[in-house]
Amino acid sequence: MPTTLTDEIVAFLSAANPAVIASVRPDGQPVTVATWYLLEDDGRILVNMDARRKRLEYLRADPRVSLTVLSADGWYQHISVQGRITEWRDDEGLADIDRLSRHYREDAYPNRERPRVSAWIEIDRAHTWGA
Amino acid sequence: MPTTLTDEIVAFLSAANPAVIASVRPDGQPVTVATWYLLEDDGRILVNMDARRKRLEYLRADPRVSLTVLSADGWYQHISVQGRITEWRDDEGLADIDRLSRHYREDAYPNRERPRVSAWIEIDRAHTWGA
Repeated sequence: MPTTLTDEIVAFLSAANPAVIASVRPDGQPVTVATWYLLEDDGRILVNMDARRKRLEYLRADPRVSLTVLSADGWYQHISVQGRITEWRDDEGLADIDRLSRHYREDAYPNRERPRVSAWIEIDRAHTWGA
Repeated sequence: MPTTLTDEIVAFLSAANPAVIASVRPDGQPVTVATWYLLEDDGRILVNMDARRKRLEYLRADPRVSLTVLSADGWYQHISVQGRITEWRDDEGLADIDRLSRHYREDAYPNRERPRVSAWIEIDRAHTWGA
């Protein structure tokens, strides 16, 4: 894990917590959406998107993102990370969305029809609120 | 209420749901943070910030924001709104943060020492996911 992430942050990000990701449109408008995420062993964060989303195009143009992770049980703690998508990969066989789905729902991802894309976020900064 | 907001969206945004707001730094980096919000009768959304936060300066420079509101009880529904802050006001007597605090915690805001600022977001677009 990178040194920017304390043990406490790693523990929090490793849980299946609700999260919101922000990207920026080419005209400068920020756009947020709820997202599943998964902290990988190398300290990067995996997110996964429908391959046909407009957001994908915007993120390829400007890979900077911000992710806020909330506590599943209330407002007592939340963490915001700023970073950049440093790797893209077509999610062949939907292996990555299945990993995310099993993390959150303990089951494979139900929609097998639409192609998806995985992205890995390199964390530049992390801010923690609460205990 | 403005016509962009359906009755369903109004009902959802009127609840004390967890939310994350995004703004954009002058260098283009999106920044997200958990926030309380309150849908006002005129259809604008009130948020309230510590007056000394750097984020306030960024938002005065570029008032565009995005807010994603999650369900308190899970992932079944979430709404994202894009808009702009169209009004700023010093929160004299902390009346606005108390309104927010009562909405979420059923009690006045505990920290009476630090000055705060209120901002009202005009909604340009709203997207709904889930039932």
